[in-house]
Amino acid sequence: MKIYLGADHNGFQYKQDIANYLTSTNYEVVDKGSLSIDPNDDFPQFAARTVTELLGNPDPEAKAILICGSGQGMVMAANRFKGIRASLCWNVEEARASRNDDDSNVLCLSSRYLSSEEVQSIIHTFLNTSFAGAPRFIRRIQALDELS
Amino acid sequence: MKIYLGADHNGFQYKQDIANYLTSTNYEVVDKGSLSIDPNDDFPQFAARTVTELLGNPDPEAKAILICGSGQGMVMAANRFKGIRASLCWNVEEARASRNDDDSNVLCLSSRYLSSEEVQSIIHTFLNTSFAGAPRFIRRIQALDELS
Repeated sequence: MKIYLGADHNGFQYKQDIANYLTSTNYEVVDKGSLSIDPNDDFPQFAARTVTELLGNPDPEAKAILICGSGQGMVMAANRFKGIRASLCWNVEEARASRNDDDSNVLCLSSRYLSSEEVQSIIHTFLNTSFAGAPRFIRRIQALDELS
Repeated sequence: MKIYLGADHNGFQYKQDIANYLTSTNYEVVDKGSLSIDPNDDFPQFAARTVTELLGNPDPEAKAILICGSGQGMVMAANRFKGIRASLCWNVEEARASRNDDDSNVLCLSSRYLSSEEVQSIIHTFLNTSFAGAPRFIRRIQALDELS
């Protein structure tokens, strides 16, 4: 499965560590930048670049991971795009709920609080929890797609 | 200052408690529902109703608070709207960062983890932290507004 990664300067090191983790667990990583630590790297461009490529992938199981300092800029930017359901997760319960209930396809992370082990647990849960597909969940996702 | 509140059935009780807290600290609360605990109440309709009213308020300081079980549905739905910068906060540091850096105007909360005191601290921080207005922050918000 392809995982698209994007980060600004604050998330750069996390992104490198996550890429190594994903590669070691046999995911195919597509790094959409930033490719260096540059304080002028703005989160909206990396969010847009990453989710645009995700939306162009016909595999419905493809996912993206976006990282910035607080994670908030990324979750704002990614959710601008129809078809993107970006969740900002700080524990495994939120990762599980956002996949199970909301069929989240983009995991956003803050680079400020989580240990490497916690990040890996959140990513593992996110990538290994299926959408439950209950009628009420499907109805809510359809309503989401109808919002401006 | 007017604070618009919205919640689905999972966030209903939190919303009532938050309304009482805000009223007791002299904010004007506008409750956009849900007005009862109804499992058929879907988060997108309450997010849309609440942020539409916020966007129609000419006061740039007006804010909204949205609550659902995980907070993820609300942050997905609210960020569909141009001019909305919705943050999902689980601690005061995130509330402060989302106001200081991103000028967040919608605070999303999960109803699952936080004590009443923690919620009040997060809300107090969110409502009392100004946007820093640094040129790089303004540039990023402008880029956010240019996304689809």
